[in-house]
Amino acid sequence: MYVALTHYPVVNKNGEIITSAVTNLDLHDIARAVRTFGAKAFYVVTPLADQKRLVEKIVSHWTKGFGSTYNPKRRRALEMIHIKESMAQVVEHIAVFGAGIPKVTVTCARDTDTRPGMSYKEFQELLQNGKPHLLVFGTAWGLSQPFIAKADYILEPIKGNTGYNHLSVRCAAAIILDRLMGNRNLN
Amino acid sequence: MYVALTHYPVVNKNGEIITSAVTNLDLHDIARAVRTFGAKAFYVVTPLADQKRLVEKIVSHWTKGFGSTYNPKRRRALEMIHIKESMAQVVEHIAVFGAGIPKVTVTCARDTDTRPGMSYKEFQELLQNGKPHLLVFGTAWGLSQPFIAKADYILEPIKGNTGYNHLSVRCAAAIILDRLMGNRNLN
Repeated sequence: MYVALTHYPVVNKNGEIITSAVTNLDLHDIARAVRTFGAKAFYVVTPLADQKRLVEKIVSHWTKGFGSTYNPKRRRALEMIHIKESMAQVVEHIAVFGAGIPKVTVTCARDTDTRPGMSYKEFQELLQNGKPHLLVFGTAWGLSQPFIAKADYILEPIKGNTGYNHLSVRCAAAIILDRLMGNRNLN
Repeated sequence: MYVALTHYPVVNKNGEIITSAVTNLDLHDIARAVRTFGAKAFYVVTPLADQKRLVEKIVSHWTKGFGSTYNPKRRRALEMIHIKESMAQVVEHIAVFGAGIPKVTVTCARDTDTRPGMSYKEFQELLQNGKPHLLVFGTAWGLSQPFIAKADYILEPIKGNTGYNHLSVRCAAAIILDRLMGNRNLN
């Protein structure tokens, strides 16, 4: 499984499609979860040149610069990051360097699509087929509806037990990777 | 269940006991997870007066200031925060306003105690007894060994499936709350 965090196309508070700004801790936290649970790579997607440079600078600091010797564990996490300009580039990269064109599964905090969401158990079973899967997280107020509609699968929203589910994308990604790939036998 | 995030006594990279600085996104992310999964309150503990004022300022912005009307969902999360100077004050607050003196369970990314860690299943069963439980997360490089040794219970570390487990405290807290309180029947 491959993981992507995208900053476009996502929606703002008013539902308008925007390009969001990169949040430093999204990169760190999701890279650490990707490394912990054993996904193959973590793609950070932004079409903006200056944002791309910012991500490159952060990743380089921790993988090649001072951070790499100061905290080698962080290096091992941030090494998982690939920076791409579009989701099409991500799919192409996996197709070339991975095991073929991946099926794309999107995550969403709300039930926004007409299709019913795939359960975590169903997705776990799907992962057993040995084919590449790309799991996509959106920043800001979430992935745009047209993007969700084009995906192969939609994963069910995380339900707490309170009716309130407004987790950060960092925490949602960590929970979903744990649900899909966490070694329950060890816990 | 009650949740606490403490900035003292924790250890730094070299294992020395320190007081860590407050991270803004720890407050937001853990408050959102606490609200989502239905813990009763989120205690933020720091003995430093200036750090306490910083947390008060952040919480006040989102619960009473501009943030409260800009993003009412964030208000509902940050309303869960109580600021205390010590873990003793947290225990006392729960004893007075809750249902008695809580049992204290600590979390740790490593197996550092001589006692075997409690499994997630065992903790879930314990939560059924209706008595108050306080789950404590440490910042920086984790809770100090003497603090861990004094706790009633230690929760098993989160295991991924890679041998690497260096999650942020934000993500670890979210995963643990999901494992203990997430409504699996809905997913």
